[in-house]
Amino acid sequence: MPASPIRKLTPFADKAKQEGKKVYHLNIGQPDIETPEGMLNAVKNIDFDIWAYTPSEGTLSYRKKLTEYYNKLGYNIDAGNIIVTTGGSEAITIAMMTCLDPGDEVIIPEPFYANYNGFASQSDVVVKPILAFIENDFALPPIAEFEKLITDKTRAIIICSPNNPTGYLYTREELEALKTLCLKYDLFLFCDEAYREFCYDGREFISPMHLEGLDEHVIVMDTVSKRYSACGARLGCLITKNKNVWNTALKFAQARLSPGMVEQIAGEAAVDTPDEYFTKVNKEYTSRRNTLVKALNNIEGVYCPNPGGAFYVVAKLPIDNADKFCQWLLEEFSYNNQTVMLAPATGFYSSANTGLNEVRFAYVLNNDDLKTAIVCLEEALKAYPGRTIHSEQLAAGK
Amino acid sequence: MPASPIRKLTPFADKAKQEGKKVYHLNIGQPDIETPEGMLNAVKNIDFDIWAYTPSEGTLSYRKKLTEYYNKLGYNIDAGNIIVTTGGSEAITIAMMTCLDPGDEVIIPEPFYANYNGFASQSDVVVKPILAFIENDFALPPIAEFEKLITDKTRAIIICSPNNPTGYLYTREELEALKTLCLKYDLFLFCDEAYREFCYDGREFISPMHLEGLDEHVIVMDTVSKRYSACGARLGCLITKNKNVWNTALKFAQARLSPGMVEQIAGEAAVDTPDEYFTKVNKEYTSRRNTLVKALNNIEGVYCPNPGGAFYVVAKLPIDNADKFCQWLLEEFSYNNQTVMLAPATGFYSSANTGLNEVRFAYVLNNDDLKTAIVCLEEALKAYPGRTIHSEQLAAGK
Ligand SMILES: Cc1ncc(COP(=O)(O)O)c(C=O)c1O
Ligand SMILES: Cc1ncc(COP(=O)(O)O)c(C=O)c1O
Repeated sequence: MPASPIRKLTPFADKAKQEGKKVYHLNIGQPDIETPEGMLNAVKNIDFDIWAYTPSEGTLSYRKKLTEYYNKLGYNIDAGNIIVTTGGSEAITIAMMTCLDPGDEVIIPEPFYANYNGFASQSDVVVKPILAFIENDFALPPIAEFEKLITDKTRAIIICSPNNPTGYLYTREELEALKTLCLKYDLFLFCDEAYREFCYDGREFISPMHLEGLDEHVIVMDTVSKRYSACGARLGCLITKNKNVWNTALKFAQARLSPGMVEQIAGEAAVDTPDEYFTKVNKEYTSRRNTLVKALNNIEGVYCPNPGGAFYVVAKLPIDNADKFCQWLLEEFSYNNQTVMLAPATGFYSSANTGLNEVRFAYVLNNDDLKTAIVCLEEALKAYPGRTIHSEQLAAGK
Repeated sequence: MPASPIRKLTPFADKAKQEGKKVYHLNIGQPDIETPEGMLNAVKNIDFDIWAYTPSEGTLSYRKKLTEYYNKLGYNIDAGNIIVTTGGSEAITIAMMTCLDPGDEVIIPEPFYANYNGFASQSDVVVKPILAFIENDFALPPIAEFEKLITDKTRAIIICSPNNPTGYLYTREELEALKTLCLKYDLFLFCDEAYREFCYDGREFISPMHLEGLDEHVIVMDTVSKRYSACGARLGCLITKNKNVWNTALKFAQARLSPGMVEQIAGEAAVDTPDEYFTKVNKEYTSRRNTLVKALNNIEGVYCPNPGGAFYVVAKLPIDNADKFCQWLLEEFSYNNQTVMLAPATGFYSSANTGLNEVRFAYVLNNDDLKTAIVCLEEALKAYPGRTIHSEQLAAGK
């Protein structure tokens, strides 16, 4: 397995820190937002003598409580549709192992969350990427392009909405188009909804769970990591109305015995997080996104879409090679003894030589830090030896 | 994947309970022992605002603390030899994926912990079982038998000591013999030490970590589940002095991002559990084992070894078929409106038609309940239609 695109720069960041440079971390999805108090209090108030296994599918009590949350969203599920997992990561692995045999193919619009590659390779599943374009703000590629990729090995499509890394929020029309496709070719539609709560500008979040007539095809992969800024809880779930899928997924869940017990108690309390928590968090992220997108588009030769959700953007920079540039930022560059750590977008593309001039920003810093970081980036782009000018890029068709 | 041998009886147990029968659960490894107070207090006293990811290999603080525990045992390791995992289950999966390619073979003495099958099939690893005999108290099979199984695909041997399901504790001589074998054929030696703390009658626990000259070959898979009766914490680790193995294992750990944060805090506190906790627990288990083994061997036609560790025994019963018998106990039998739930040993054998007259007992009930349960079993054996007499079994070579 290759090193994760996010982590391979870590040694350079460590070195930069040793040299006394301040590094602005815009590279990782660890939010700086506080976990809801009610969730942490549930941990502090645990009241049991034996820290025991729970049922492999999760406690009935937590799964029932979760249905409150999902049914408010209109998912129309019961506890029997849920399998509690160790983070969204495990939900994705179990979904793949459940629905695909070794050698089967899954189509994923790229750029996509890089760890899908790891999960696929662990499950011996073949990823078929389908290119989404920054010029098009990373909207869903045309259905005709999907159809070109479908073979007798294709079993599923994975989407992530709102998207990591692009922040793109799929529309109802796009999901309807995917529905038609999945019904036509009898494909599973996996939806990674890790960022569901992060939708901006009054945009509505639409899940494949909202579509009629797709119950047998939809698998939602979810996590509390971002929703409640509780990444270290390792608590997620898989949701499906397909009974065969649920039953097979349970067998994989049984093999690893149990999800965490304390986390399920905390997760149950988290469902009662007051709406104000989300309002406040969304306001903060909207403002950060506005700051970031505006500042980026003000830099000569930079293009950044203004996405509807998550807390990431992918921007196009006037550079030769994002991997080199991101490493150079840490190793060679500093401005006022500061630098910026970004994720090269290449790691989010599975096609070779794609996204070479794109980087992902996670806006997990407050507005002031964001502004300073972008000034720093602007200076870096002036100094970077591999800078290309905007017109050259256009000529190269990127 | 097949249903776990432990779980496939659950529907019958549920039915028995619905009918108002009391079911003595001797089938599962969920201890009834209390988790150390210090560990639970660490959870109650958490003091952070953001429940964040930890490093994928675990926090340095927890890994350092763990070295205290392991170095007291003479493992001579540092924090850089440890990867913290989500339970021992994940340690086993990661070890397999790290050291074996799809199609590679691992030799495991059987009966063995049934979930190894699940982990192997997820990793596309082929399990080659090697039979250990109840008549021999499940001691290590002769090395010559191992050698017969070795092919150019063989990469590792897995042992579990003290053993689940047999309770057998491997001796230094057996481990030395395995060492010679592993060096001769360049095989990894995986040791599952989930039950390390449960050794009885003053017997010494020996780990492959104690053997000289085997550093590059040994991978220890560990868990706090049984040690601190903290199964629901989902906290384990993988230990190896082989740097290549550690580095590759880290990549799998990175793909799932992080182990649980609160659990690592709790695990750190657990290392300071006073010795008296273990003394008390071991005294309790020794007494239960004595009760159980004695009572079993007093029943006509039953043979049960007196193993040195863990909290399981495998016994031979005068029955035609353990699967049928265990199901019959739940469905058809009752004595004073009570019955017993056992795990058929067939699930712990990967060879077909093996262990047909063997069952596993987990002595996770107190002495009084154990005694009542065994009286119940004795009555059941008298009434069971598929009873065989002892002499017939002997004639059948079992
Ligand atoms: C798109 C996406 N899916 C899934 C995950 C996995 O999250 P976790 O395993 O923490 O629930 C992440 C984490 O960053 C993510 O960005
Ligand atoms: C032999 C053995 N190994 C590993 C495990 C896995 O334990 P966990 O994943 O709870 O750490 C168990 C659990 O029963 C076991 O018996």
